[in-house]
Amino acid sequence: MVGCSRRQETLARALALGVIDRAEPDPAIAVEGAEVVVLAVPVGAMSDILASIAPRLAERAILTDVGSTKGSVVDAVKNSFGTIPARFVPGHPIAGTERSGVEASFAELYHQRRVILTPLPETDGKALQAVRAMWLATGAEVVEMDVQHHDEVLAATSHLPHVLAYTLVDTLARMEEHTEIFRFAAGGFRDFTRIASSDPRMWHDICLANREAIGAVLDRYMADLGRLREAIREGSSETLLQTFARAKRARDEFKQ
Amino acid sequence: MVGCSRRQETLARALALGVIDRAEPDPAIAVEGAEVVVLAVPVGAMSDILASIAPRLAERAILTDVGSTKGSVVDAVKNSFGTIPARFVPGHPIAGTERSGVEASFAELYHQRRVILTPLPETDGKALQAVRAMWLATGAEVVEMDVQHHDEVLAATSHLPHVLAYTLVDTLARMEEHTEIFRFAAGGFRDFTRIASSDPRMWHDICLANREAIGAVLDRYMADLGRLREAIREGSSETLLQTFARAKRARDEFKQ
Repeated sequence: MVGCSRRQETLARALALGVIDRAEPDPAIAVEGAEVVVLAVPVGAMSDILASIAPRLAERAILTDVGSTKGSVVDAVKNSFGTIPARFVPGHPIAGTERSGVEASFAELYHQRRVILTPLPETDGKALQAVRAMWLATGAEVVEMDVQHHDEVLAATSHLPHVLAYTLVDTLARMEEHTEIFRFAAGGFRDFTRIASSDPRMWHDICLANREAIGAVLDRYMADLGRLREAIREGSSETLLQTFARAKRARDEFKQ
Repeated sequence: MVGCSRRQETLARALALGVIDRAEPDPAIAVEGAEVVVLAVPVGAMSDILASIAPRLAERAILTDVGSTKGSVVDAVKNSFGTIPARFVPGHPIAGTERSGVEASFAELYHQRRVILTPLPETDGKALQAVRAMWLATGAEVVEMDVQHHDEVLAATSHLPHVLAYTLVDTLARMEEHTEIFRFAAGGFRDFTRIASSDPRMWHDICLANREAIGAVLDRYMADLGRLREAIREGSSETLLQTFARAKRARDEFKQ
């Protein structure tokens, strides 16, 4: 297993931890002779990486990625290769924590997690099976859906909550009495804002890469929040109770 | 320790669990001869309880509460007693989970948690010390602040996140593909929305009882969210990156 990173210290740590067998800072060299190439960079960095590896990637090499948005990665692949290579299998493991970097990895990271693959009409069946087998070996469950559907579902369940949590922490942090405010925050607040500790660059990239789907669900959310704000202003008991009760039912159905 | 609840089954469970020594469904009878009375009902139910116990409460009895809003409870006490009794010590333990009811209790619930007391000019020093001692005995840290400040701080760190989480789950639950959406939700979503499993009646009451402070911080939040929405629409890289980075710094400073 050859590991590639721009940062020398990341490669050194990965070698020391036994996560990779060989370190190679140059992506074009790292992919030489590879059977499977897994791109795991922020989605905003995909284009540059793809441009540098496209001329060196062997015809038979399977190319996959773990990007949180799929439409933007597919576009980047099309731009770099001029077409969708049959061996390209877009993927996205729904796992991870608010931490990032090689030291945030652990063997069970993908155990019983879902991995979404979004094969394209051009995608070769054997390449798809190989990537599927790779993820099954980590203990993950693999599902398939189309690119646009992936981006819409993830905008709702992952990208939107991150935007809301980042905004809340920022709103409070910019209030005068912010030290006092954070001092009296309890467990609910900690859970709610944990994802605001995620890597800002990564989430900046996701917001730009999936802006249409995120924008659509964010507009819907803001309209609903506006209605709730009116209900609070008017003391509309029924709206508040109905909304909270409906949400609790939905949340309780969705296990823990 | 005398426990009072409208529900017979709650009293039976509390007796069986050894949480109380004697059960009494009528609040007016339950407070007879009591040295300390702790009101632990949704803030919307405080007025009725206070009206029924006010005529029966002994002059020397200390009265305290655990309501999540303090201004509304102080008003309710004033209405029922015609004045603020010197033995009244408003309180709010910053603890608890999304679960409620006697079975959600455990001995360490208040260990190392903060309890806010909001004594009034009328509050007797000895009553304050007694309530403070009661909370210290549970392992809590006791702090004091004024009523309005409490309501503003809690609106920001607790009430607003609950409103945002309830609204998010409700927005997604009302989308056509909601089953699919929840199916692909991961750990971040679970943490973010855990508080939407809280008791709807309790949070309805809080939103009405503290509507001005919640409305003020919600307006601020909605304005900030609107700006971020514009940044996503315009692809404004700098705004996104600055906001997320500032939020991450603030969240990382606020331990775990």
